[in-house]
Amino acid sequence: MNPQVGIIMGSDSDLKVMSAAAEILEKFDIPFELTIVSAHRTPHRMIEYGEQAAARGIKVIIAGAGGAAHLPGMVASITTLPVIGVPVKSSNSIDGWDSVLSILQMPSGIPVATVALNGAANAGILATNIIGAFDNTVAEKLKSYKEELRDKVLHNVEKIDRLGYKKVLEHKLNIHP
Amino acid sequence: MNPQVGIIMGSDSDLKVMSAAAEILEKFDIPFELTIVSAHRTPHRMIEYGEQAAARGIKVIIAGAGGAAHLPGMVASITTLPVIGVPVKSSNSIDGWDSVLSILQMPSGIPVATVALNGAANAGILATNIIGAFDNTVAEKLKSYKEELRDKVLHNVEKIDRLGYKKVLEHKLNIHP
Amino acid sequence: MNPQVGIIMGSDSDLKVMSAAAEILEKFDIPFELTIVSAHRTPHRMIEYGEQAAARGIKVIIAGAGGAAHLPGMVASITTLPVIGVPVKSSNSIDGWDSVLSILQMPSGIPVATVALNGAANAGILATNIIGAFDNTVAEKLKSYKEELRDKVLHNVEKIDRLGYKKVLEHKLNIHP
Amino acid sequence: MNPQVGIIMGSDSDLKVMSAAAEILEKFDIPFELTIVSAHRTPHRMIEYGEQAAARGIKVIIAGAGGAAHLPGMVASITTLPVIGVPVKSSNSIDGWDSVLSILQMPSGIPVATVALNGAANAGILATNIIGAFDNTVAEKLKSYKEELRDKVLHNVEKIDRLGYKKVLEHKLNIHP
Amino acid sequence: MNPQVGIIMGSDSDLKVMSAAAEILEKFDIPFELTIVSAHRTPHRMIEYGEQAAARGIKVIIAGAGGAAHLPGMVASITTLPVIGVPVKSSNSIDGWDSVLSILQMPSGIPVATVALNGAANAGILATNIIGAFDNTVAEKLKSYKEELRDKVLHNVEKIDRLGYKKVLEHKLNIHP
Amino acid sequence: MNPQVGIIMGSDSDLKVMSAAAEILEKFDIPFELTIVSAHRTPHRMIEYGEQAAARGIKVIIAGAGGAAHLPGMVASITTLPVIGVPVKSSNSIDGWDSVLSILQMPSGIPVATVALNGAANAGILATNIIGAFDNTVAEKLKSYKEELRDKVLHNVEKIDRLGYKKVLEHKLNIHP
Amino acid sequence: MNPQVGIIMGSDSDLKVMSAAAEILEKFDIPFELTIVSAHRTPHRMIEYGEQAAARGIKVIIAGAGGAAHLPGMVASITTLPVIGVPVKSSNSIDGWDSVLSILQMPSGIPVATVALNGAANAGILATNIIGAFDNTVAEKLKSYKEELRDKVLHNVEKIDRLGYKKVLEHKLNIHP
Amino acid sequence: MNPQVGIIMGSDSDLKVMSAAAEILEKFDIPFELTIVSAHRTPHRMIEYGEQAAARGIKVIIAGAGGAAHLPGMVASITTLPVIGVPVKSSNSIDGWDSVLSILQMPSGIPVATVALNGAANAGILATNIIGAFDNTVAEKLKSYKEELRDKVLHNVEKIDRLGYKKVLEHKLNIHP
Repeated sequence: MNPQVGIIMGSDSDLKVMSAAAEILEKFDIPFELTIVSAHRTPHRMIEYGEQAAARGIKVIIAGAGGAAHLPGMVASITTLPVIGVPVKSSNSIDGWDSVLSILQMPSGIPVATVALNGAANAGILATNIIGAFDNTVAEKLKSYKEELRDKVLHNVEKIDRLGYKKVLEHKLNIHP
Repeated sequence: MNPQVGIIMGSDSDLKVMSAAAEILEKFDIPFELTIVSAHRTPHRMIEYGEQAAARGIKVIIAGAGGAAHLPGMVASITTLPVIGVPVKSSNSIDGWDSVLSILQMPSGIPVATVALNGAANAGILATNIIGAFDNTVAEKLKSYKEELRDKVLHNVEKIDRLGYKKVLEHKLNIHP
Repeated sequence: MNPQVGIIMGSDSDLKVMSAAAEILEKFDIPFELTIVSAHRTPHRMIEYGEQAAARGIKVIIAGAGGAAHLPGMVASITTLPVIGVPVKSSNSIDGWDSVLSILQMPSGIPVATVALNGAANAGILATNIIGAFDNTVAEKLKSYKEELRDKVLHNVEKIDRLGYKKVLEHKLNIHP
Repeated sequence: MNPQVGIIMGSDSDLKVMSAAAEILEKFDIPFELTIVSAHRTPHRMIEYGEQAAARGIKVIIAGAGGAAHLPGMVASITTLPVIGVPVKSSNSIDGWDSVLSILQMPSGIPVATVALNGAANAGILATNIIGAFDNTVAEKLKSYKEELRDKVLHNVEKIDRLGYKKVLEHKLNIHP
Repeated sequence: MNPQVGIIMGSDSDLKVMSAAAEILEKFDIPFELTIVSAHRTPHRMIEYGEQAAARGIKVIIAGAGGAAHLPGMVASITTLPVIGVPVKSSNSIDGWDSVLSILQMPSGIPVATVALNGAANAGILATNIIGAFDNTVAEKLKSYKEELRDKVLHNVEKIDRLGYKKVLEHKLNIHP
Repeated sequence: MNPQVGIIMGSDSDLKVMSAAAEILEKFDIPFELTIVSAHRTPHRMIEYGEQAAARGIKVIIAGAGGAAHLPGMVASITTLPVIGVPVKSSNSIDGWDSVLSILQMPSGIPVATVALNGAANAGILATNIIGAFDNTVAEKLKSYKEELRDKVLHNVEKIDRLGYKKVLEHKLNIHP
Repeated sequence: MNPQVGIIMGSDSDLKVMSAAAEILEKFDIPFELTIVSAHRTPHRMIEYGEQAAARGIKVIIAGAGGAAHLPGMVASITTLPVIGVPVKSSNSIDGWDSVLSILQMPSGIPVATVALNGAANAGILATNIIGAFDNTVAEKLKSYKEELRDKVLHNVEKIDRLGYKKVLEHKLNIHP
Repeated sequence: MNPQVGIIMGSDSDLKVMSAAAEILEKFDIPFELTIVSAHRTPHRMIEYGEQAAARGIKVIIAGAGGAAHLPGMVASITTLPVIGVPVKSSNSIDGWDSVLSILQMPSGIPVATVALNGAANAGILATNIIGAFDNTVAEKLKSYKEELRDKVLHNVEKIDRLGYKKVLEHKLNIHP
């Protein structure tokens, strides 16, 4: 099946963060592709990727990058598809502010849908939200996912009610001391 | 025609910023609705809005708010639709950082597609990108829009080439001294 | 005895920080309840919690959350009780600024009494201050607590006077090298 | 009638900001006093104020200050009453960060209930929340106030529905161009 | 004479800031060209500009942009020439941090020589420093320029010595009240 | 009489801020000199100034500068006298953070006594504190000054007590609307 | 011999940082005292300390504190002696910004001589600079100290010249891997 | 062969960061020298270095420093050569902001070509860019270097295509767990 979402990242060192987007899409059975496209090291490949994505059936592009993160905004300048930007907190980043601001603060006319620092999982959900707005099966899965999130909270509520917060805390501290 | 985009904002004082989203959608002939939904002053209305939007045919929600801006994230917690968040730089904001961070830094599972500070026009474009990914007519309009943006730059290139930068600058300074 | 303080938090991962509020209330014999209420994962539960708290005899709500922390402000939008907000420095937080600003910078009409980053113990004291303003027994305990704090300082003053700062420092470095 | 709330500020130049707290308390018929107490210029007066406030029947202290704002925290170190801190954005402040951080980041044991930058009105509401937790008449007034806030939003909703957003915007731009 | 420096900027709204670079180059008789190249609105033009600059005899590129400023870094990814980046503080910038960080924090392998916020004049000097390192006539002019800067200070020293600081201050306040 | 304090600044544009230091010293009858010494435009003059200050009888140097403010730290590297640094918020400063950090964060061995942004008056007081620690007459004047500061507060306290805060506020708003 | 410098800190947990000030004073044979004075836990002790310091022969006070650091500024409000403030980066500090700003940004009339974050050694040097301005023996020792600093650099210069930077680096990496 | 690039740094503790610049220059066969020049500990050596560099045949100076980093700007004030500044994130730095701002925000007339925090490798490339603008052999090497960078990306692209992203990720996590 043709990929509906293209996940790209500036470097394979971003894979540890960006794989969370892929895992979400797998969970929702959204076909996707994942590759490396560097704005600064492969500018021609980046332009080609942006120009061909829509024609290849891609509906949403997820682009992750760190530091002076130009990949999401540059791809957005080339395609008419929605581009989701994931600021990656790389080493030597100034606390992540550099990637956040260089993805978020796009000029008028060329938006990037920015998610939280290292928020690749949320980028996957957002891509699913977009596809789900036009595909009822996906929308239904998103409803179930929201119920899962809720039930996990309610399960923890019940656990604290049953055991008391001290026992739960003790348990947590033993696992992650 | 049923609205495809719902533009909501926390207060009518955000209208000066948020109207730019509406103007973009008008330009692209995307039917939309615009209203006020306050997370903090009308929490029940907010929940109702979020719960009913998809059923009413809305495909994308654009939510703008300033300061401790909870509207975009709270609506995203209720709907399965993509929610675009516009951080608004309100008076007494700490330089806009408060609205940016309280919209952007959503927890795992509930993304908000954040655009630049006061970037309501870009929120309009992003909503159009999303709709255009599933509607060829809209995608074609987006291509023309990109050409417009390019041609406006090329026009300015030509003006500087013809008149010299000093004349152009002089002209700009006379208009906005 | 009915709880006078409700401690809520967005996720059980906040328990390591938020348990300090519970410990303070135990120290002051203030009856309290502790549970998980997620603004984004259980919005209906949150509204219900906020709407019923006062009727159940709760006098103060302590709400902790990290990242785009909407729980304290959203609960404050629903109840007329004082809400104390604890910004939690979660992983992937941008140094805690996100939770601080999204709790602190509430719009006019819906305040949250914000304490320091990870300041759950202080949230417990503040709740006690509030109850103590209307309950002399609690106020007396708070006076003794202030004396305890003072005496602990004076004890350290005496230790440095007696042993010299070098010995005290050596001792500290041996314990926490 | 004895004042229940003490509003203090570091300098009479803070009066423009801090008077909003007084106006809120007047609206809720909470008796209050308002005076100037400078941590740095009248340290003895500050200590005296803090030591005597509870005995004089004060239930809540609202303290506003700018820059390196020590008044709220120092008063909190002396009294067992809840102290609400209002960071004031004074001239030569570094964008208000100095007053926010020097009020918010109190050490363990001495909390200050911090509200938003220049959030004196919210300090007034928070004091009313605290008193209302122990006084039903005040709590009822707070409920009505929440309804007022909601109705004002609904009024604006209706206005935009009736006139269209463009007319409303035009009207706003004419008033505050 | 062939231009040795190419001054480019993302939009003609940057001209007010960027013209200072041109004025410096004129002062030092360095031939230059000035035009508009937008990373986001004219990506192909940008790539073409970067690819041809060296062959056309350009020695240094000065690129100015605001917000999520990708132009300097993207041009640097294409050319082997030194690229000087000028962060421009545009409207809706978050105090200039966005343009500073998205120009400065380039990944390993693709540097941009970043100057101060709005520091277009310094970009002009830096381009002259670079050319002067290989051209003695230019180096001599730079030495004279340093002497000019020094003499202007010494002139002000003498004025204060002669008139007293109060007279000089009075004079300054009258001119720029 | 020989100057005891040397006030220096990087540019005569700093005079509007730095003159406040001179006015304080005049008030306390501390003899001083005021001149311009630029780290970047007159490095040799700066070194000479630093090397000769102590021998000329100077006891304290007050150095003000904006942006990348190197003057206070560089003078401190040359002299053994205490150097007070005044961060000046110049145009194109990034909100003053640049001058604050480049004066404050000196490496081990070469301290600068940094005061608040634009805090030249406080630099004058601090120089007086230093001289007063070794000169009883000056110390007595500082005590009177503290009493003046206190009495001015008490005068405002009395005014609010007598007229009510509304009248005082009205009066202030009329003067500085 | 009577102490000339008083080193105080808000808590004995600051001793690890603040002991560096004591070590510097020992190196320069400046008699000093070191004790704990907490603004928030022992406000009366703090006022007493400030009021009596000058009479006891103290010439300079060094005060260190973290978070909302009020000790240096509060002591400065009481004494006429110069007060050197050391911002301490405590746990739960927001990267040290809180202590820096709450010490640095003092209001007009009550300066604190602020040094770098955790800069206790520099506070010791600055106290020595102040004493040395009035005591030739100390000034001579400061000159020797500057020579020591210089010679240590020149020694490292020579080592790199002799061994090559790679050997020196290797050696450093082996010691602190 | 005479060195064309001078690499200097404020302290030998900067060597771990700054050696990356040397390694780049070795890779490109650019002759260089490396030594320690401290603005604050050896101000005369710094001035001498700056004054003689051009005459000794140096074309570019790379200067690295941390905290209140004055070395790059001070050297730029003395020489007419281009000076590349490397902000070094030293211990006790406030997240690197201090070194970034005190190098970047130079006043008009004295630019420093600033690279990213700890970006010494990029400083080496930038020096090579500058030399390559006037030396074809170097320019050709830079073109090959860009191809290397590209090929490394394409190699990783191929690896992900062949093995799938999960295998590649697993492999990465095993190496750097």
